[in-house]
Amino acid sequence: MTNKGREFEIERYRIDQEPFYVESQGEVGLFTTAAQNRMPVMLKGPTGCGKTRFVQHMAYRLGRPLITVACHEDLTASDLVGRYLLRGQETVWIDGPLTLGVKHGAIVYLDEIVEARKDTTVIIHPLTDDRRLLPIEKKGQIIEAVDEFLLVISYNPGYQSVLKDLKQSTKQRFVAIEFDYPAPAVETRIIEREAGVTGEVARALVKLGEKVRNLKHHGLEEGVSTRLLVYAGTLIRQGVEPGRACEVSVARPITDDADMQRTIGELIKAVF
Amino acid sequence: MTNKGREFEIERYRIDQEPFYVESQGEVGLFTTAAQNRMPVMLKGPTGCGKTRFVQHMAYRLGRPLITVACHEDLTASDLVGRYLLRGQETVWIDGPLTLGVKHGAIVYLDEIVEARKDTTVIIHPLTDDRRLLPIEKKGQIIEAVDEFLLVISYNPGYQSVLKDLKQSTKQRFVAIEFDYPAPAVETRIIEREAGVTGEVARALVKLGEKVRNLKHHGLEEGVSTRLLVYAGTLIRQGVEPGRACEVSVARPITDDADMQRTIGELIKAVF
Amino acid sequence: MTNKGREFEIERYRIDQEPFYVESQGEVGLFTTAAQNRMPVMLKGPTGCGKTRFVQHMAYRLGRPLITVACHEDLTASDLVGRYLLRGQETVWIDGPLTLGVKHGAIVYLDEIVEARKDTTVIIHPLTDDRRLLPIEKKGQIIEAVDEFLLVISYNPGYQSVLKDLKQSTKQRFVAIEFDYPAPAVETRIIEREAGVTGEVARALVKLGEKVRNLKHHGLEEGVSTRLLVYAGTLIRQGVEPGRACEVSVARPITDDADMQRTIGELIKAVF
Amino acid sequence: MTNKGREFEIERYRIDQEPFYVESQGEVGLFTTAAQNRMPVMLKGPTGCGKTRFVQHMAYRLGRPLITVACHEDLTASDLVGRYLLRGQETVWIDGPLTLGVKHGAIVYLDEIVEARKDTTVIIHPLTDDRRLLPIEKKGQIIEAVDEFLLVISYNPGYQSVLKDLKQSTKQRFVAIEFDYPAPAVETRIIEREAGVTGEVARALVKLGEKVRNLKHHGLEEGVSTRLLVYAGTLIRQGVEPGRACEVSVARPITDDADMQRTIGELIKAVF
Amino acid sequence: MTNKGREFEIERYRIDQEPFYVESQGEVGLFTTAAQNRMPVMLKGPTGCGKTRFVQHMAYRLGRPLITVACHEDLTASDLVGRYLLRGQETVWIDGPLTLGVKHGAIVYLDEIVEARKDTTVIIHPLTDDRRLLPIEKKGQIIEAVDEFLLVISYNPGYQSVLKDLKQSTKQRFVAIEFDYPAPAVETRIIEREAGVTGEVARALVKLGEKVRNLKHHGLEEGVSTRLLVYAGTLIRQGVEPGRACEVSVARPITDDADMQRTIGELIKAVF
Amino acid sequence: MTNKGREFEIERYRIDQEPFYVESQGEVGLFTTAAQNRMPVMLKGPTGCGKTRFVQHMAYRLGRPLITVACHEDLTASDLVGRYLLRGQETVWIDGPLTLGVKHGAIVYLDEIVEARKDTTVIIHPLTDDRRLLPIEKKGQIIEAVDEFLLVISYNPGYQSVLKDLKQSTKQRFVAIEFDYPAPAVETRIIEREAGVTGEVARALVKLGEKVRNLKHHGLEEGVSTRLLVYAGTLIRQGVEPGRACEVSVARPITDDADMQRTIGELIKAVF
Repeated sequence: MTNKGREFEIERYRIDQEPFYVESQGEVGLFTTAAQNRMPVMLKGPTGCGKTRFVQHMAYRLGRPLITVACHEDLTASDLVGRYLLRGQETVWIDGPLTLGVKHGAIVYLDEIVEARKDTTVIIHPLTDDRRLLPIEKKGQIIEAVDEFLLVISYNPGYQSVLKDLKQSTKQRFVAIEFDYPAPAVETRIIEREAGVTGEVARALVKLGEKVRNLKHHGLEEGVSTRLLVYAGTLIRQGVEPGRACEVSVARPITDDADMQRTIGELIKAVF
Repeated sequence: MTNKGREFEIERYRIDQEPFYVESQGEVGLFTTAAQNRMPVMLKGPTGCGKTRFVQHMAYRLGRPLITVACHEDLTASDLVGRYLLRGQETVWIDGPLTLGVKHGAIVYLDEIVEARKDTTVIIHPLTDDRRLLPIEKKGQIIEAVDEFLLVISYNPGYQSVLKDLKQSTKQRFVAIEFDYPAPAVETRIIEREAGVTGEVARALVKLGEKVRNLKHHGLEEGVSTRLLVYAGTLIRQGVEPGRACEVSVARPITDDADMQRTIGELIKAVF
Repeated sequence: MTNKGREFEIERYRIDQEPFYVESQGEVGLFTTAAQNRMPVMLKGPTGCGKTRFVQHMAYRLGRPLITVACHEDLTASDLVGRYLLRGQETVWIDGPLTLGVKHGAIVYLDEIVEARKDTTVIIHPLTDDRRLLPIEKKGQIIEAVDEFLLVISYNPGYQSVLKDLKQSTKQRFVAIEFDYPAPAVETRIIEREAGVTGEVARALVKLGEKVRNLKHHGLEEGVSTRLLVYAGTLIRQGVEPGRACEVSVARPITDDADMQRTIGELIKAVF
Repeated sequence: MTNKGREFEIERYRIDQEPFYVESQGEVGLFTTAAQNRMPVMLKGPTGCGKTRFVQHMAYRLGRPLITVACHEDLTASDLVGRYLLRGQETVWIDGPLTLGVKHGAIVYLDEIVEARKDTTVIIHPLTDDRRLLPIEKKGQIIEAVDEFLLVISYNPGYQSVLKDLKQSTKQRFVAIEFDYPAPAVETRIIEREAGVTGEVARALVKLGEKVRNLKHHGLEEGVSTRLLVYAGTLIRQGVEPGRACEVSVARPITDDADMQRTIGELIKAVF
Repeated sequence: MTNKGREFEIERYRIDQEPFYVESQGEVGLFTTAAQNRMPVMLKGPTGCGKTRFVQHMAYRLGRPLITVACHEDLTASDLVGRYLLRGQETVWIDGPLTLGVKHGAIVYLDEIVEARKDTTVIIHPLTDDRRLLPIEKKGQIIEAVDEFLLVISYNPGYQSVLKDLKQSTKQRFVAIEFDYPAPAVETRIIEREAGVTGEVARALVKLGEKVRNLKHHGLEEGVSTRLLVYAGTLIRQGVEPGRACEVSVARPITDDADMQRTIGELIKAVF
Repeated sequence: MTNKGREFEIERYRIDQEPFYVESQGEVGLFTTAAQNRMPVMLKGPTGCGKTRFVQHMAYRLGRPLITVACHEDLTASDLVGRYLLRGQETVWIDGPLTLGVKHGAIVYLDEIVEARKDTTVIIHPLTDDRRLLPIEKKGQIIEAVDEFLLVISYNPGYQSVLKDLKQSTKQRFVAIEFDYPAPAVETRIIEREAGVTGEVARALVKLGEKVRNLKHHGLEEGVSTRLLVYAGTLIRQGVEPGRACEVSVARPITDDADMQRTIGELIKAVF
């Protein structure tokens, strides 16, 4: 508890405890091979299916620090590479997350890369060539990545639009591993563990998750993530009535449509 | 009175007096459970139905400071996280409201989050993961939130449009509590108390409120808030003729449409 | 006269002479009540119907300074709240007009609020809550408004469009007083007084004004303001032929449409 | 001649020689009356019909300096009002053209005001009220205009579009004087004088001008300005063949349309 | 050769060697007359027809320095006029290209003026009035142009669109000289001279040029420039097979359309 | 290995080892001739067909440094030319990549030039004229390029749109060499060499590549690059099952379309 609230040094990006992750289709081996051969990796899949947890797990397994950057449309190349800052009377250079990773051999994870501005997207091009270089224009320098550096991006194909899509000249620099929601047995184990509920409750929640995800073909924008099912489980463990717990954790967050909320409400009743 | 007009220190975000709030459907318990389990909370509901008052009430009950940020399309990530400022010859770092809350265990309330720029929305992602981290890129640091930190956002589904909607990858990080206008008995108590009017006047105003809110299905953009009913009550207490008080507090502010104003005018006459 | 051209100190926002204003429907009493109860006020009405003059009059009557800000789409929150400025070697904080008013108990009048950027609009939200707070993010401070502070906005419903409209969550924070052009007798007195013309000339001008304003239902964008009628009167007093005076003061400024100008020309001939 | 190329002090805005101008419909008297009564003036009319020359002429007649600002969409309020600048180690305030005029009693001429950004347009509002104030937000000051200050704007109704139009609340602050191309006798005198050609050549050019301006009703975007006719005259005086002189001075500059150029070519042949 | 790579002082804008130029329709005399009479000049014509070479030639003939500015949509007024720069501890003013030309009597050539931002376009207005003034707002100064200063702009009517067009109030300040591709005999001489090929090869290339330019009426965006024909000649002189030389110098650069490239390929075969 | 992670000096842009490249249609000779005659070169062709590798190869052969700039819509002219930077108390000028190349005789390769902002595109105009000048506006200087400087741009015609296209006045400054995917025998050699697989595996991958590229006429956005085939080969060499290796290296990265992925899956099965 004394640990909380103070500022961490940048090398603390290393993950000390093994993040819980259950493999589904050989992705651990594939990622390991890619990392050993310095091949950039793209994680494809819907919201909340475990991409972020997987990369945390792999960073732990490979013993490399993990630097995560949530991309957005105002993220500049400088935000990634670094900038000069005034500190009192002195100007000091602060390495950005990408430069940090390139120098110290971290996994740099650019989450939702399609959201980034084009200059951010393009800065990774020379890093994904066989020469693995990062030009730092502001310092007139060029850095070669250490062997342990690995670039990983996530990409949700469902979001793709004309305005926000990766260029082929970017896409074709990555090995792509596809993700989907965990299999029922796996998801049950996750919920049991993270929400601290019985197997029975966990199985009911997984069943609800499956039913809600099927609604995606009937107008629901996106299926429910494992995280929200864990939220529901946690509330149930704390004594919240299961129907209410699922309403506030599942039905309300994922849709504003009254009909869809009613439909999900009936699914909740059917399960509990 | 001597207190007014001077500048408050930042730790004065603590609320000293209990804000008046009447619970309607178990939201106090739910919020408390979520807060104890470090689950981010989304408050959903129309304008002026009591979301802001509820979060003030909960901050008081839980004994945590409340930092409110009214989101808008020019709010930058730096506005939330902090920035270096020149003070005379020195450069000093000023924590933004989010950093303040993360360090000192406050409830940070991002009001009308859909109005914010995307970089502002995305900065809350690592804070709503299970590791609860806030990266401060400008300082090359990463802060872990103290246990008392709680992120709360408000969201009015009626405002949602293609351009301004929360991404599913943001939505699915929150437990969502739905709000609506207070029940008649509750709203009557609020108006009696806050406007200082008799129960009879308060009941008449609540009746007017109900009738006006029903117009939402007949072309009115948004129902009338409890706040405007309190304004009307206050004017009546000060001797303004009730019809005129309701005209300037209810009919005029909520619509510019002449027909709709006439309709509301007739509702006013029917009630008083 | 020796007074002109020098720079005034900021506390000179106080109005020394009573601005001429003729009440039409109890707005003086309503505004006074609202001011005493710290209720924000919205003045609704067309261009040039006397909203600005009214607020000047009320500031004089209530003995409070009046700080007027003409809103526009590039007005930033910093323009209202204040900013740090370099003065020689020193950095000094300069309070913006809103902070000035909040500290010293002025009426702050945001003219044509719909023109403002969203961050400007949103900054007034916590000031119009019951806690009446102004956060100054740049200084990491929060100021509570003194009791004499009053926020007043003007709003021309005729301008409203999809792009430029006040959000309901902003509108529903104000008591709204509606304005229209002054009644004939009142407008005649104003023109007599301000243009220095006889009652006969003033009455003719008022008649012209009425006829021109009726054209609004026949394609004229906006009626003629009292100010332009005063201009016409002034030119007539200076010896300009009445028809020419009305042409340059009324017909030419308010429309570029040749047919409409011809129609107004005929109205001018009919009156003089 | 030794005078050229050196930098003038700002007070040199005074016009020493009488600019040649021939009055057409009493505009000299009207402008003088408006100036004496501190009424802002709008000059309306097409490109190149003499608005700029008229305001130069009036500045000379009234003995006031003339500060002209060509408005454009990137002109900021600071460009007009002034700003702090670093000069070596010192920060100095530089008055913008509007502040200069307000302090020293100049005519400030905002040419093509519709091109300006909205914050530029709005800054003139308090200057065109009866209190004639210019707030300088950056300095926390407010300046009252001296009596000799006069605001003049030009406005070409032909340019008006939905995106670029003056708001009624701006328009209705000005007396509007309408301009058109000079009458034939007047334009002949101008060309004789400025191009140094004989009356015969000048009359031919005026005839050509009239014919070209009539094409405006047949698809020509804008009529030919007196300035271009003066250019043609100058080239003719220098020995350029009249047909070629008119082609490069009239036909080529005003249209890119091949058919329209051919039509103008035939008009040239008909006249010379 | 030792000369290369070092930095030239700004007065080196003078052209020491006569640029090769063959007059076609009296443009040398016209330009000279305009320059002597301080009339701004617009050069109209398609890409690569010799406008830039002509202005270089005229600068040499008139013995004036030539300052060329390639306009683009991010060119600011400050880029043209100048700005204060920090040099070590000192702030120094650096004249922009326009100010340099205005002070020292250069020809300032704004290439493709329609690409410039509006504030850049408008800054030339007072320079093209009869008073020839350049206001330097940042320094609070106003400079009168020396007699040798001449403003020249280029303008490609084929590019014109609704968004990118010169305003009439800008166009009508210039004498306009129209350019087209050189006549066959002239173009042959240019290619012989610049590519160092025989007359036979040069004539073949000119023939190809003519045929390709005729395709403009059949869907080709723009004709082939003399420069590209010179490139083709140079490659041929260096031993590249003529068909291949024309393919890479003519067909490939000017179009991406496969059918059009095939058509040009057949024209190449027909000529060589 | 000790070499990795440290910062390279800017002159390290020289390529020490010959990049593997197999010529297909005389492009080595053409490029050499163009370089010797200082003719700017445009490389046209689809993503991943070897343009970047070719320019690296040529830089090695010609013994010139290679400076690559990945263009994007936020790349400014200053990013290319250079800027003043504060270093402690001193202001130092840092040459941008273009200035570096112009001074020291490098090949400057602007990759995907159509992505750049217009000011970036236009800055190369004077460098591609026969005078080969680079104006450095910020320093008030103009630099003549050394003979060894060569400007090379890449351009993917398939990307071209109305919004993002090179202007003819830019295009017509370059000799254009067209590229396509390598011939089967060449591509086989590349894959054998770079992935370290047998000829049999390499040939199978080339066959797959051909089949996938044919899908471009059936709705696939872009064919598969040689790089992705090398990725597949590398995974196969590391023991990944060929079908899975091709799925993650070919099918997943290049398309999000489920039908297209299935089609590619069948092609993979047919080949392995």
